[in-house]
Amino acid sequence: MHNWLLPEYVEDILPVEALHIEVTRRQIIDLLLVHGYQQVIPPLLEYVESLLSGSGSDMDLRMFKVIDQLSGRMMGLRADMTPQVARIDAHLLNSEGISRLCYVSSVLHTVPSGLTQTREPLQIGAELYGHPGLESDIEVQHLMLKCLSVTNVRGIHLDLGHVAVFRGLIKGAGISRDLETELFSVLQAKDISTLQELCSKLKKNTRDALLLLPELYGDKKILADAKRRLPDYPVIGTALNELSLVEEELSPVVDNVAFDLADLRGYHYHTGMVFAAYAKGCSSAIALGGRYDEIGRNFGRARPATGFSMDLRELSRLVKPKTYPKGIRAPFEKKDKELEHLIQQLRKAGQIVVTELPGQKSESLACDRQLVLLEGKWIVKAI
Amino acid sequence: MHNWLLPEYVEDILPVEALHIEVTRRQIIDLLLVHGYQQVIPPLLEYVESLLSGSGSDMDLRMFKVIDQLSGRMMGLRADMTPQVARIDAHLLNSEGISRLCYVSSVLHTVPSGLTQTREPLQIGAELYGHPGLESDIEVQHLMLKCLSVTNVRGIHLDLGHVAVFRGLIKGAGISRDLETELFSVLQAKDISTLQELCSKLKKNTRDALLLLPELYGDKKILADAKRRLPDYPVIGTALNELSLVEEELSPVVDNVAFDLADLRGYHYHTGMVFAAYAKGCSSAIALGGRYDEIGRNFGRARPATGFSMDLRELSRLVKPKTYPKGIRAPFEKKDKELEHLIQQLRKAGQIVVTELPGQKSESLACDRQLVLLEGKWIVKAI
Repeated sequence: MHNWLLPEYVEDILPVEALHIEVTRRQIIDLLLVHGYQQVIPPLLEYVESLLSGSGSDMDLRMFKVIDQLSGRMMGLRADMTPQVARIDAHLLNSEGISRLCYVSSVLHTVPSGLTQTREPLQIGAELYGHPGLESDIEVQHLMLKCLSVTNVRGIHLDLGHVAVFRGLIKGAGISRDLETELFSVLQAKDISTLQELCSKLKKNTRDALLLLPELYGDKKILADAKRRLPDYPVIGTALNELSLVEEELSPVVDNVAFDLADLRGYHYHTGMVFAAYAKGCSSAIALGGRYDEIGRNFGRARPATGFSMDLRELSRLVKPKTYPKGIRAPFEKKDKELEHLIQQLRKAGQIVVTELPGQKSESLACDRQLVLLEGKWIVKAI
Repeated sequence: MHNWLLPEYVEDILPVEALHIEVTRRQIIDLLLVHGYQQVIPPLLEYVESLLSGSGSDMDLRMFKVIDQLSGRMMGLRADMTPQVARIDAHLLNSEGISRLCYVSSVLHTVPSGLTQTREPLQIGAELYGHPGLESDIEVQHLMLKCLSVTNVRGIHLDLGHVAVFRGLIKGAGISRDLETELFSVLQAKDISTLQELCSKLKKNTRDALLLLPELYGDKKILADAKRRLPDYPVIGTALNELSLVEEELSPVVDNVAFDLADLRGYHYHTGMVFAAYAKGCSSAIALGGRYDEIGRNFGRARPATGFSMDLRELSRLVKPKTYPKGIRAPFEKKDKELEHLIQQLRKAGQIVVTELPGQKSESLACDRQLVLLEGKWIVKAI
């Protein structure tokens, strides 16, 4: 019997890393709070219909389900907190103006998203509801970058996309829903030969535009390219313009900005600009976000929304954790008021003081100092 | 369609309460850390066999189960973190000496434990492994009381029990396993008439002792009663002595100490002293704990262990949460370096500064001050 065996992609976090995660968590939450983002704590499980609101079938497959013994209905374990926070905004807060919300908690996935990923990401993020303009996109992206900066993540690369470009092409060309789904899949998979096949029966300008999308990846020069070579639909023009404005605003605070007009991540969900942050030495994005103005509709109240989220575990791994702080060993002395008072003071100052217990051999926490009685006074002395 | 409808005993926590929980969480974690308790983060799900190690069938019924798509095996969503932390101590840390560990995370229950309880308690607790003596029981109980005190819970009542009293009676009288289980159930339910019936065939001194147990509830006088009237088994004498020593040690720091020798909470699990803390205005215990020296055995390494845990949600409800702090409204001005610098300073000092967004009507976060330009200088002014 190996009861200590854990399922794959499920892990224990031990003290050094746990402390690092705790510190990172507080840094980010504090930053979000002083920017006016109010923390909410949605439940780990809810009825499946609520959790799947506005998301695609990929989310459905990634979600663990259980039966509610009290109602007989199916509940899901959240795989993403964004729909939950949108529900809270739409229903509970019910504000007409702007709400800024933030959250941090575990989410669960039936299968990991990649080889190095866990099935239990610790999702931390922020959402801004009630503002449709580009200013809120910029606020949220800037905030995401500040979160990375406060946790000492360096070498940030920001990737910008805009789902309105693809949506605009589809709508302008009057493409059917079925074909749209197929085109979306092959673009996601960057499967160029199937894309060529699917486009073969479309009008030349639509075909050229769709085949061009996967090439529209790179620095701001590609925006000019896109403007020149994509159809002259107003919605595409607006999208390209927005991308250019955000680049201007954020390029001073990141190492690099790039555009990817074929990035359709979260297409079922997002309605406007999408963004992802990458860090040196990490192949997958460490923070993701975008605009998703439609999500509240399923809760009876469509609201403009934009936000980002990250996995606190992945994030904290990017910055080398410090070693665990060393403690001060205190002897087991009952009724020594002076010693008791000194221990209390040291702990108040944030020092770890571990009381020895009679007959103990050693302890798992390393101590580099101890309390000793010297000429009638207790002092801290190196071991 | 009511997608905002939550399952019963499942709830959203909104900003005022969420902030209060966040503050309480940090106070307790910080206290545990400076006492040398190192934080660990076990996973939300594990194979069922690991999660049920050493616990009874009641835990099995309270645990949600899902199938692991990667292994086809049954996984459980933890209903208690204690077995997980014991697994970490037994397997991963593998220290010969003392380990002190702490944790804070959600656990899930299929059904609530009472009418006012949630199905998603936020369990916070500490465990001390590797020390069999009474000194560690006292350390852990004292620490629990400090946790309540640091979060401003007042009017604490400490209830002490000792499963060795019942175990001693059973063993001393050579009672069968089946009858033991029955006796345990009726004592738990305080079902005196069935208890009398079950005891009718036992020897007089055993019968008298078992029938006496439910009466042995009250202040320290009942310890003398117990000593006089219970059989003279050494294990019972030791248990009563331990209870008396702990009372002496802890009565100065709580409002009231009482004993309950029929308290068999966690009998399958606990092996020694058990304790519970109650607060004014709260009918169920707010913190629970005890000694459970056998739990590590299922992970291949039985270790002396004692610990406590609480539900952070219940705990934070006992202390009236403050209202949410008011913010400072800042105008939307691009490229005003002086304003930007002031905002940054205010936020660094912990002030909430919310930037207005063009065209916004109002916001959900209340502000009582704003940044205004007065004679060429930005200042904070009451609204």
